Parts: sequence; structure tokens; C-alpha cells
Amino acid sequence: MKLSKLVGERLKDAPAGVMSKSHSYLIRAGYIKQVSNGIYTLLPPAQKINLKLQEIIREEMDALGGQECLFPVVMPKELWELSGRYTSVGEELLRFKDRSDHDMVLGMTHEEAAVHAALGSLKSYDQLPFMIYQIQTKYRDEARPRAGLIRVKEFTMKDAYSFHENQADLEKYYKQVYDAYFRIFNRMGMKKVIAVHSDTGMMGGKVADEFQLLTDVGEDTIIVCPHCDTASNVDVATSLPEENDHIFGVKTEVFTGEAKTIDEVCSNLNKQPSQIAKAVCYAVVGDSVRVVIAFLRGDKEVNEAKLKALVGADIAIKDLADSGLVKGNIGCVDLNIEGAEIYYDKSLEGLESFVTGANKEGYHYIGVSMTRDVKPEKYVDISKVKEGEKCPVCGHELLVKRGIEIGNIFQLGTRYTKSMGLTVSMPDGTTINPVMGCYGIGVGRSLASIAEENCDEKGLVWPMSIAPWHIYLCPIRLDDEKVRAQAERLYKRLTAENFEVLYDDRVASAGIKLTDSELMGIPVRIVISPKTIENGNIEITIRSTGEKFFVTEENLSKKLDEIIVY
Amino acid sequence: MKLSKLVGERLKDAPAGVMSKSHSYLIRAGYIKQVSNGIYTLLPPAQKINLKLQEIIREEMDALGGQECLFPVVMPKELWELSGRYTSVGEELLRFKDRSDHDMVLGMTHEEAAVHAALGSLKSYDQLPFMIYQIQTKYRDEARPRAGLIRVKEFTMKDAYSFHENQADLEKYYKQVYDAYFRIFNRMGMKKVIAVHSDTGMMGGKVADEFQLLTDVGEDTIIVCPHCDTASNVDVATSLPEENDHIFGVKTEVFTGEAKTIDEVCSNLNKQPSQIAKAVCYAVVGDSVRVVIAFLRGDKEVNEAKLKALVGADIAIKDLADSGLVKGNIGCVDLNIEGAEIYYDKSLEGLESFVTGANKEGYHYIGVSMTRDVKPEKYVDISKVKEGEKCPVCGHELLVKRGIEIGNIFQLGTRYTKSMGLTVSMPDGTTINPVMGCYGIGVGRSLASIAEENCDEKGLVWPMSIAPWHIYLCPIRLDDEKVRAQAERLYKRLTAENFEVLYDDRVASAGIKLTDSELMGIPVRIVISPKTIENGNIEITIRSTGEKFFVTEENLSKKLDEIIVY
Repeated sequence: MKLSKLVGERLKDAPAGVMSKSHSYLIRAGYIKQVSNGIYTLLPPAQKINLKLQEIIREEMDALGGQECLFPVVMPKELWELSGRYTSVGEELLRFKDRSDHDMVLGMTHEEAAVHAALGSLKSYDQLPFMIYQIQTKYRDEARPRAGLIRVKEFTMKDAYSFHENQADLEKYYKQVYDAYFRIFNRMGMKKVIAVHSDTGMMGGKVADEFQLLTDVGEDTIIVCPHCDTASNVDVATSLPEENDHIFGVKTEVFTGEAKTIDEVCSNLNKQPSQIAKAVCYAVVGDSVRVVIAFLRGDKEVNEAKLKALVGADIAIKDLADSGLVKGNIGCVDLNIEGAEIYYDKSLEGLESFVTGANKEGYHYIGVSMTRDVKPEKYVDISKVKEGEKCPVCGHELLVKRGIEIGNIFQLGTRYTKSMGLTVSMPDGTTINPVMGCYGIGVGRSLASIAEENCDEKGLVWPMSIAPWHIYLCPIRLDDEKVRAQAERLYKRLTAENFEVLYDDRVASAGIKLTDSELMGIPVRIVISPKTIENGNIEITIRSTGEKFFVTEENLSKKLDEIIVY
Repeated sequence: MKLSKLVGERLKDAPAGVMSKSHSYLIRAGYIKQVSNGIYTLLPPAQKINLKLQEIIREEMDALGGQECLFPVVMPKELWELSGRYTSVGEELLRFKDRSDHDMVLGMTHEEAAVHAALGSLKSYDQLPFMIYQIQTKYRDEARPRAGLIRVKEFTMKDAYSFHENQADLEKYYKQVYDAYFRIFNRMGMKKVIAVHSDTGMMGGKVADEFQLLTDVGEDTIIVCPHCDTASNVDVATSLPEENDHIFGVKTEVFTGEAKTIDEVCSNLNKQPSQIAKAVCYAVVGDSVRVVIAFLRGDKEVNEAKLKALVGADIAIKDLADSGLVKGNIGCVDLNIEGAEIYYDKSLEGLESFVTGANKEGYHYIGVSMTRDVKPEKYVDISKVKEGEKCPVCGHELLVKRGIEIGNIFQLGTRYTKSMGLTVSMPDGTTINPVMGCYGIGVGRSLASIAEENCDEKGLVWPMSIAPWHIYLCPIRLDDEKVRAQAERLYKRLTAENFEVLYDDRVASAGIKLTDSELMGIPVRIVISPKTIENGNIEITIRSTGEKFFVTEENLSKKLDEIIVY
């Protein structure tokens, strides 16, 4: 490819508002171009990477026995109604009417389509297990796109669906996919990927893992144990309960006046946040009656994903104005609110002398006891794990990390096969619903994540395995006859030898050319100039290490063969 | 691949209403599955073909210097407003609102996106020419999907866009793409593809060619000259004017009573249809005022595409009830209808004694003269060319054929670069809008067209170059220990030797297995059975010719290497 004809602009600065390195460099180096909020065109170099990533994924999926299909982007409402997701999934599922007034959706995941593909042909247990997958454009009506290709509305995704006779067979296969995912991300050049236990979300099912690239710009919070390597998304992470002191006090109502927040109450009563039971109130989305009140220790925060899972519905912080609750004085004794669903976090267990609101303006109780005064039926885990809490597996101190979710895998159970009536007959004549797994990788997000992990202050540093081109052929002083002749000769020869070459055929300054080669992140740079010609050699620079080699034109291909391995 | 695990059903009969062979066989052999009207899942064998077709296209596009991009499926209204197509394209462009109430469209073509990709980076004439392309899912809100993958709502398409300094350079490149298209279709195994002149439609521009696979189930009508090979879509086809006799008559009003249709009037007045000038009336879609009346010889039919191009807007047959016209008695003399736009077909030229309506109930004129009584300003070509008319190039008799349009190419001019403000600066300091070409190939439709051309009464006959697998390994009597051992050994060995093998590992009758191998159309079948083992050989059958070879297990790979070439 000649750089003079390459579509895409190289920019000195990123547009305003660009925060992450991958976003900035992918725009600045001419890899992507925004068409609309969260919608991008992949320019030629990015599409080259996209295809290489797809090929790695395809090879590994095929090695797992996967059968590639192509499901529709646009699907009829009826298909999504079979699983119940037409109504259960929120606004991120784009719904519209076609010209015949039929309700349609834009696919963001394809469990229904996968089951539909198997319906009819799948009849007997001996056809199991099998896995079908696709690599395809998906659309998610994302409310807050961000960070370039990291969170977008439209993206290329690999999604796979496996079908099994029973849970044990699913678990065996799940482990194989789990291992394959690490091979995939490793081949793509991402080193800092970890698997973390995660929430099953809209997919349903019980077990799920996410593959997270650890990076400070990640939008997910991950709780990691550096000792035993247990890792979980904060939405499902647990920690060992912190011991409370179990010392009883005397329950007494005290006047606290304007003290409402945890800090104000602590200061007013000379207590620590860990000696307070605070309340957080929620409404259930789409239900004007249900009220949820979460009580937890004053130094803890509610993990809404955990609470939502217990409530079984979407929740939102409730406006207290019309609920009869006294803001800042809500407490877990003498709370008179009919029908409220009350959850007590496990952090409260063992607190026998704590502060809580007295449910009247200006007053709190001190010396409250959980076992004597509150007597909850049970404690649940609805708080966020924080750095320094203890690993539930080994007891060591947990760390909080940030990550980008580049893949996820789910054990789905029979949710879709049952609702859509997919059955197989067993040897004993009975019929069962196959057990399913599903397995996603965001291809565009992988691209951005690789960029995020592989860059420096000068620009991108693509891993050899997925670089758009391996070689940046960079002649300096192309107005010099000898340089031009050698450049054209080398471009022709290297291309004929199947090297992937980006030829900077611009008559431009050395500074511009060298800067662009670094910004674009091509792994190997070949510089020729009047000086190298005079010296009878060619300069090779490795982008990732800065290493330089000087070789004769004769030995060039041999040296490149040594360097370009992956 | 083991057939027992392959997703997709092989059926004895096609579903009701399936008319074309490709549609029937693709469903019956388990290649595609309908999800909704005009929306299909490509099952694994079809997706294998899809990828091979894409690879052929990609190689040929890259050989033309094409740069592969990926444009968005979902685009904002604003982008399509820049070209004016947000309003000018009809209902087949699916428009919807996203969750933020933004107007969006589902891409059916990407001229706007291609120009957008070049905006900013394209500055100077020396960056020209270049071509960008993508292979991607498109959506067209098709009113009448039909024939399986031949006319669908969602499809994979290759669309390419080239940019040039001037028309001459575009024409040179256009010819290169034209030639490449024949290479592509030839490599895909389609032999009966011809290029035909076509209408530019919603793309705009002046010159366009379609690539049509000639087949009786095609939905397009093509006019072909078997002598000079001129071929045109009927929408733009012309023929030499037929000579009328130029003999004058006496204009006379005659009572024709209930005679309204051409047949009735002919019979009533003892005339031929070619002695009548008939009227066809149209309304302009979206315009309650404009009325269009087309006059043409009674033996001709209106070609609405030609008329539409002259009118410059969509037209629809007009209900005459409220227009003041007398149905069945409309004529081209004494026609009093204010503001009607009247077009005279060239077939009327030279008619000097013909019949036409008298514009009053029950009466016609005879002996009417075009030059004396009608005096049209000009004649236009608004009639359909019919079989037997004369080729405008060489004068030989034209044939009418049916075809499936699998590709099309357009010379677009500056319509998009001008409206979207894409300019380059020229050596003399002026700026120009680059001239564009665009080039499409329907990948899914190609798949169906290949199937349509390559099948027999037993099923599909895939060309070697794009077959989902090359070899159908067909052991008969898999319950026989020796057969099973050899089958497993061959499957392992051939797969290891990189042959693409579909292994029929089912314990099923010879009849079922042989029938399925033929239905699925895999080019080479290997049969092993107790008998072949006894004879010490292996039976190879070529699907397309029925040729049989018998080889030893030792010589199998060598023979397969000879057979599997493309």
C-alpha cells in the first residue's frame, strides 16, 4: 500500500474530549472516523486489523468444533417474544417498525436466533454437543458511548452458542472455551487479560465469566486477590465479613438536630461510620407501589447489581418526598412503612451497639442492637467490596482494579431451549431441553484494547500478529534519484515476497515521515536515505523496542523473516 | 466436519410456495433457514460458501488497488441529508428513531459514508485515484421478498467507491472494474453472466451496467442482440424505430359504443393494434396536481422506468374517476385537460391514419394524422422493447431474456462529492469535486445464482472453487467394523492433509447417504463399503459429471489432488 493513496488523515492532536490513549491514537493515526455518536467507520488500516482479529477468533472457534453461521441483524419481534426478552430487555434493544408495520429489533445478541437455527434439525441426543457461532455487526442502543471503540453503539462481535445434553457436559465445554479465550487474547497481543467472575445480567443463567484487560481507563471495576488470583467483577465480588465487636449498648433516643449525613451524624455523636446503620431507599422501575430499603453499615456502599438481583427487577434511587420517610433520619427500628421490602447487609451482623435514625425529624438512636432490637430474618450481601477487604477464598487483602471487558462467557442453562421448545430425545425415550452456553468477544473493543495496552508517548505499537502492515518502508529524500530507485525496487520486491508493506511514498520531510511511522505503530520500519545508500546498508528499526539493525539490500529479506514472527 | 453434528436439516420436499430451484435446494439441503419474510440465517455450509465468495471478491478488489473499510450499518439522518437522499429515496430505506429520538437509517448503500471517510484526508489531486470498499450486511426494506436469497431484505454485499480527477480517469477505472467483475463471476463458477446497460436509478449518474446471470427464474428482463452482443436491461433498452406507412387518412368521428379496450376497438373497427394510438394515464406520486399522459401505439407497452426518468419523479397508474377523462375513449386530439404533461412514444411517428379516442363516451376518431392533427413537439422513447424488434446497433432481431442481477457498476459523476463538499486542489491552484464510481456485488444473491445455475434433478452441484467442502466421505455400512475403521482413518488423514471433508458419520442406509451427498452438491464423493474393501479400492464420484474412479487407499490423495483444482 502506498501511503499517498491511503484513506485517512494523520493528525497532530486528538479532537477535544478524547480521554483514552487508544481513542486518541486510533483517531490521530487515521484508523477510525466517527460518523455519529458511538458510530464509527473503520478506515483501511483498522479494517485490516479487524480481519486479522476475526481470523484468529475463527481459527480458535473452529478448533473447538465450532460451526460458523450468519444470523440476521434485523429480527422480528416474534422471535424475541419466544424467550420473553422482547419485553424484559431495556431500551438498549433497538425496536422499530418496518414499512409493513411489523415490529422488528436490531440484534445485540443472538440466543434466540441460535436456537431457531437448531429447531427442526436437532432431534436426538447423539447430535449433541455442538457449537455454532458468527462474527457479525451488532447494534446496541447505548445511552453513553465513550472512549472510541471501547463503548459504541455498533460493533463487530463474535458470538457463539453451544448445546449440551446436561450441565456436566456444558461445564466441560465451558472450560475449553475459557482456555481458548486466553489463547485468542494472547495471540492478539494482549498480555494483561484476566478472567473474572461476573453477573449473568440479561442473558440469564447462573455462571458467567468476563475476560478483562486490566487498564486504568477501563470502565469496569474488578476485585482481585493478588495472592490466590481470585478475580470478580465488583457486581458479584464478595469478601470475608468484617468482624463487628458484638458488644451490647443501651438503646437511647438522642437529639441530633440538623445532622443528616453519615459525616454529620458521626461528628455530632463522636462515632465512626462503621458504628452506624444507614438506609438507602429505592423504587422499583415500572412499579409505583414497591419500595425497597437497604440497610448497611455507614462505611459501606450499596452494590446495586447485587440488590437488583435480589429484588428481581430494575431499581432506582427513590425520591423520599412522598414516601413518609424522614430523610437523614431513617433507621431500622420503629420503621413504619407499609409493604416496604427491607434488606440488611451482612456488614451489620454482630453490631450490637450502633447508631441509626429514629425515623423522626432531628433524632437518632444510639446503642441499637441487631439481635435485640432489629432481629432481621437474614443478612444478605448487597455492599460493594472495597480495597483492603479480605479475599473470601484465601483471606488476603483484595485489590481494586479497572478493566475493559473484551469477552464474556455464560452458562445459560435451559432458559432459551425451554421457552423456545427445543428438545432432543434421549436413549431412554424421554425428551430433554438441551443446556446452553454462550460466548462473546467484542472484536472492535479488542482492537481498541490492544491499542490501549500497546502504545507509548509516540503512538501505537501494534503486536506483529495483528499489525495492519508489518513493514513501514520509509525513504528519506525521495527527491533523490538513487533513493527513489531503491525505494521503488524494495517496495516491488518485498511485496512480491509477500511481506505486508506500507510504503511512505510522500515527498515529505524526514521528521514527518518518522513521526507518522511511529504514530501508526507499524512494527518494523525500514529507512533508506542518501546516507544509507552511501554506507551500502539499510536501517531497520523495531517499533516496540527501538532496536536498530543495519543490513545489506541482499540480506534484507532474510533479516525480515527473522524479525517478523508471531 | 461430521455430518451428525452439522446444524441444518435435509428435507425431502421444499416448503409450499418455493418456486426457484436455488431456493428449494438451499432450504432442502440445509443451507439457509428463514427467520422472517426476506430474512434468513445462513447455516454453516452456506456461511462457508459466503466466506469463499467474499475471499474471491476481496482478492480481486485488492488487485484493483482497493482499500477495504467497514462503514456503519446504522447511519444518522444528517449524513443522508447531505446528499439529499434522506428524502429522495423511497420506503425501501428503513428510517427509525433511536432511544434519544435521533433519526437514523439502516444502510442499503454507502455513497455518503464513503465520501465522509474521504473528507478531511483527501486534499490534493495527487491522492487520486483511489478506491475504497467494504463487504458488509445491508438492509433494504423490500416490499416483496422472493426466491430465497435472490430478493431479500438483509444481505451481504460488497460495495466499492472510486474517486477520480476527471471523467476520463473514471472511465478507464470503470473498465478495469468491469473486467474484474467477469473474473470474479467466472471464479465463482457462473458462466452465463453478461453485462447489460442499465438504469442509474437512485444512485444518480449517467452510465451504469448490470451483471446479469441469465436464467429463466430471473426477475429482470434483458434485451439481447445475439448478433452483436449488445445487451440492455429492458428499462433502458432501445430498438430501431419500426417504420409506419406515412399514408394519410381522413379524420372522422365514429361511434364505437362499448368498445373500450384495444381488442374491442380493433374488433369494432376492423383494425390492427398497430393502427391505434392508446393512452395510459399516470399520477405523480406525492403530487396531487400533476397528471402524466403517455400516448403510444396500441401494440406497445409503456416502460415505466423510461417514463419515470422523463417525468423526474415516481409515477403510478392514475385512477381516472376524478380527472375528467373518459376511460376507454381518451385520445390525442381534442384532449382538454389542463396542465397534463403529455408524452408521445416514438412508435407513433409516421402514423398518419390511425384510431384514437374522441375524448367522449362511445366515440373514437379514425384517420387521425400525427403531423396534421396532433403535431407533437417531439417523440420520446417510453415503450418496452419486445422480442423481434431490431437491434439499434446492428439491426438484427433482438431476444428477450430473464436474468438475476448479481452486480452493478455506476459512473456517478460529482453528485455526492459536490453535495457533500469534497474537493481536491489541482496543480493550477483551482479546486475540483472528484468524479466518483460505485460498484456493487450481492454476495448472498451470488450464492443463490450459483446454485440456480449449478444444479440438476438430484440437487446442488457446487463449483469446486466455492464448495462448502470438496469431499463428501460416504461410508456405507458403518456398522461394519472394517468400514468404520477405514472411514475414521480416512477422515483423520484427509483432514490432516488439508482436504475439506464432510464426513457422513451417520449409521444410515446407503440410499439416504447417497441421496444427501447429491442433494448437498459436494463436488467429490468418496464411497467405501464392505465391497470396496473386499476389492481393495475406494470409489470416487464426481458430482458434476458422474464420472467414477477407483483408486487404492495409497493413491487416494494423489488422485484427489488431480481432481480438486480451481
